[in-house]
Amino acid sequence: MDQPVDSLPEILPPLPGQRLGRGVCRGLRALDFVCVEELVPAPGLRVDVMALGPKGEVWVVECKSGRADYRADRKWAGYLDWCDRFFWAVDAAFPVDLLPEGTGLILADPYDAEVVRMAPEVTLSPARRKVVLRTFARTAAARLQGLRDPGFVGDVRFF
Amino acid sequence: MDQPVDSLPEILPPLPGQRLGRGVCRGLRALDFVCVEELVPAPGLRVDVMALGPKGEVWVVECKSGRADYRADRKWAGYLDWCDRFFWAVDAAFPVDLLPEGTGLILADPYDAEVVRMAPEVTLSPARRKVVLRTFARTAAARLQGLRDPGFVGDVRFF
Repeated sequence: MDQPVDSLPEILPPLPGQRLGRGVCRGLRALDFVCVEELVPAPGLRVDVMALGPKGEVWVVECKSGRADYRADRKWAGYLDWCDRFFWAVDAAFPVDLLPEGTGLILADPYDAEVVRMAPEVTLSPARRKVVLRTFARTAAARLQGLRDPGFVGDVRFF
Repeated sequence: MDQPVDSLPEILPPLPGQRLGRGVCRGLRALDFVCVEELVPAPGLRVDVMALGPKGEVWVVECKSGRADYRADRKWAGYLDWCDRFFWAVDAAFPVDLLPEGTGLILADPYDAEVVRMAPEVTLSPARRKVVLRTFARTAAARLQGLRDPGFVGDVRFF
């Protein structure tokens, strides 16, 4: 209790993938992208990070804490349909040769991240982009309200 | 310090207009709208509440705490170009006869709100809607990151 404020331990997200996600969100901010974590673009899908760029670019980033985490992911190919570019985010110890071609690569830790291989661009259709942007906006605003006004328990439907 | 948790005083926003805004955001949630407060749709403009509906509807709500607050507002007509529907939000004591025709009316207090007169719809052009939705999404996500990751001081440009 007598610990000075500036030596208080930082609160890190609990899971390794979430810690990478935090660094990804920080790092993408330097590219003027804003992020929403654990976003559900459609029922049954949940992306680790969806990022929205200054011109409306939509990137999806899947954070993998290690080989086992990557091997267990059977859904990632389904995320390609929900973004203009798809990236993996891994830490420096990750065996990057495992990762499939045609995907982007972000090197991350809990504090920052850097795009080391740009993903190829496959642009969303206008109709799909509209849906994605709306879902992103509604998810972010609903969570923001939850944090700003914790006394209110509301509900929001996305689909 | 010995106060039981359930009797802790609730923290209300400091300004009367912000307190109405909180109630507006709560009340619009019942209509499945999500809200961002104090949103800047374009340089020099700042709306009290922008709300995004389940089908992408964009509403703007200006919160007026009293006659003087309303009389001092010289910008509201400029907000009409940034939404599909425009509303005033006031409390039960407000002299509603002051309000111009052709606008919607929401009766609010810090805890809830109700639409008592629907605003006429003047739909945004597709190009303008795209800009508005992007600004809404980026503002919400940037603020959400600020609350979730307070240790990070990032910056975001909206224009």
